[in-house]
Amino acid sequence: MWHGKARALLAVGFGMALEALACWLIGRLGRSSSSPSWWWWWWLWRRRPPSPVREVLFFPSRVTCVESLLAEETATPCACLLPHGESALGRLLTRLLSARRSLDLCVFAFSSPQLGRAVGLLHQRGVHVRVVTDTDYMALKGSRIGELRRAGIQVRHDQDSGYMHHKFAIIDKKLLITGSLNWTTQAIQNNRENLLVVEDRDCVNLFLAEFERIWEDYNPAHYTFFPKEEQQVQKKDKTIPQTKL
Amino acid sequence: MWHGKARALLAVGFGMALEALACWLIGRLGRSSSSPSWWWWWWLWRRRPPSPVREVLFFPSRVTCVESLLAEETATPCACLLPHGESALGRLLTRLLSARRSLDLCVFAFSSPQLGRAVGLLHQRGVHVRVVTDTDYMALKGSRIGELRRAGIQVRHDQDSGYMHHKFAIIDKKLLITGSLNWTTQAIQNNRENLLVVEDRDCVNLFLAEFERIWEDYNPAHYTFFPKEEQQVQKKDKTIPQTKL
Repeated sequence: MWHGKARALLAVGFGMALEALACWLIGRLGRSSSSPSWWWWWWLWRRRPPSPVREVLFFPSRVTCVESLLAEETATPCACLLPHGESALGRLLTRLLSARRSLDLCVFAFSSPQLGRAVGLLHQRGVHVRVVTDTDYMALKGSRIGELRRAGIQVRHDQDSGYMHHKFAIIDKKLLITGSLNWTTQAIQNNRENLLVVEDRDCVNLFLAEFERIWEDYNPAHYTFFPKEEQQVQKKDKTIPQTKL
Repeated sequence: MWHGKARALLAVGFGMALEALACWLIGRLGRSSSSPSWWWWWWLWRRRPPSPVREVLFFPSRVTCVESLLAEETATPCACLLPHGESALGRLLTRLLSARRSLDLCVFAFSSPQLGRAVGLLHQRGVHVRVVTDTDYMALKGSRIGELRRAGIQVRHDQDSGYMHHKFAIIDKKLLITGSLNWTTQAIQNNRENLLVVEDRDCVNLFLAEFERIWEDYNPAHYTFFPKEEQQVQKKDKTIPQTKL
C-alpha cells in the first residue's frame, strides 16, 4: 500500500506533466509559444529576493592563508605552508571585500595586517571608505591607521574622556558587521570573540545614524583641546597642551 | 464629491455593521449566540504572535535613577536628585530583569553596581544564572564577580592565554543581548558603545552553543595550570605557579 504523501506527490507531478504536454501540443498546433501555469510559479519563485544575510562568526579564528582573498591577481595559487581552508577571518574578509560603494568603519583598535590590506584594497577600488577610531589606540605600534591615512582614507578620532569603543562596519549602507571583535591579530587569533553580520534595514539605519553622529562630533573643525576657562590661562603660560588621561 | 478611499471604507463599515445586526437579530430570535465573520478575523489578528524583539541601544547612557527597576518593593518612589527618565542603562536593566527561567552571561569585565544588583536579584528570584568571565579582570577592584559568587551564582573563567572578550547575555534561551559594551560604569557612562537585543532563534541557538562550549572548556575539572613538560620541574622546585601573562 502506497504512502499518502508519495501518492499526493505523484498526483501533482502527473498533473504538471499533463499540463506541460497540453501546452506543448497547443504550441505545435498553433505555432505559438505556450507555458504551463506552474512554470510561471517556478519563474516567480526563482526571481524572489534573496533572504537577508544573517551570519554569526566566532573567534579565535583558525589560522589560514587568506592571500587568495586579498591578492588582486589570482593567477598563481599561494604556495605558503598555512592551511588553505575556511576560517572566521576569511569569512569576515569576504564580507568586507563585497563592498562596492561604501565602507563606514567604527573600530576601537585596528592593527590586523590582513584587515588593513582589505580596507586599503577597497579604497583603491574606488569604494568610499570612512574610518572612526579611538585616539588612544590609533598611534600605538602596529596600528594600521597611519598607513590608511597615508593611502588617502578619511579617518576621524575622538577627543573625549571616554573611549570610542564601538567595533562595527557598515557595507554599502545595507550590511552591518558588529560584535566584540577589535580588528587586531591578538583578538582574531587568541581571544573568544563574536561578530554578527546582519542585513536588516532598521538596524543598519540606526547604526548609520550613530556613525554620522560620531563622524560629525569628531569633525576636526570642532576640536576643543581646552575647556574655555583654561584656554586663556594656557595661552598665557604657553604650556604644552595636556593630553587626556 | 467623495474620495474613493473614504467611499470604500464606508462601504466596508456598512457591510460589517449590517452583518453584526443580522447576527444580533438571529441571536435574539433563536436565543443562540452568534458572531459576524469579521469578528473571528479580528479575534485571530489579536491572537497573532508578537513580532520578535529587535532593539539597538547606544551608549554613553544618560545618567538616570534606576531604583524603580531594581527595588523589590516599589511602594515609595525614589526621592534622589537624579533624573527619573528613560536611559540606555534603564532599557538594558528592563530586558535583563525580564528573565523568568535562565540567564547565561558571558562578559569580559563586570563592575557595574546596577547590573550586579540586577543579576543578584534574578538569582534571588530563582532564575538559573550562569556567568562566564575573564580571569584577568574578575579580581580587579570594583569587580562584581566576587559578590555574585558569594551569593551562590555559578561563575567560570578562562585559563587561556587569550582574553574571554565576549560581551553577551542570553535570557530564557530566547533573547540575545550582544555588542561592544563591557558591564562597567566607565563603559556605560563614558564610552561610545552599542548593544543589539534580538529575539532570533537561529542567532540565539548559535550563541547558546558557544556559551555551552565555553562553559565546558572552563570547567574547573579541566584546569591545567602548567604545560605537561613544566609540571615536573615546577613540582620539584616548589615555586609559586606562574599566572598567565
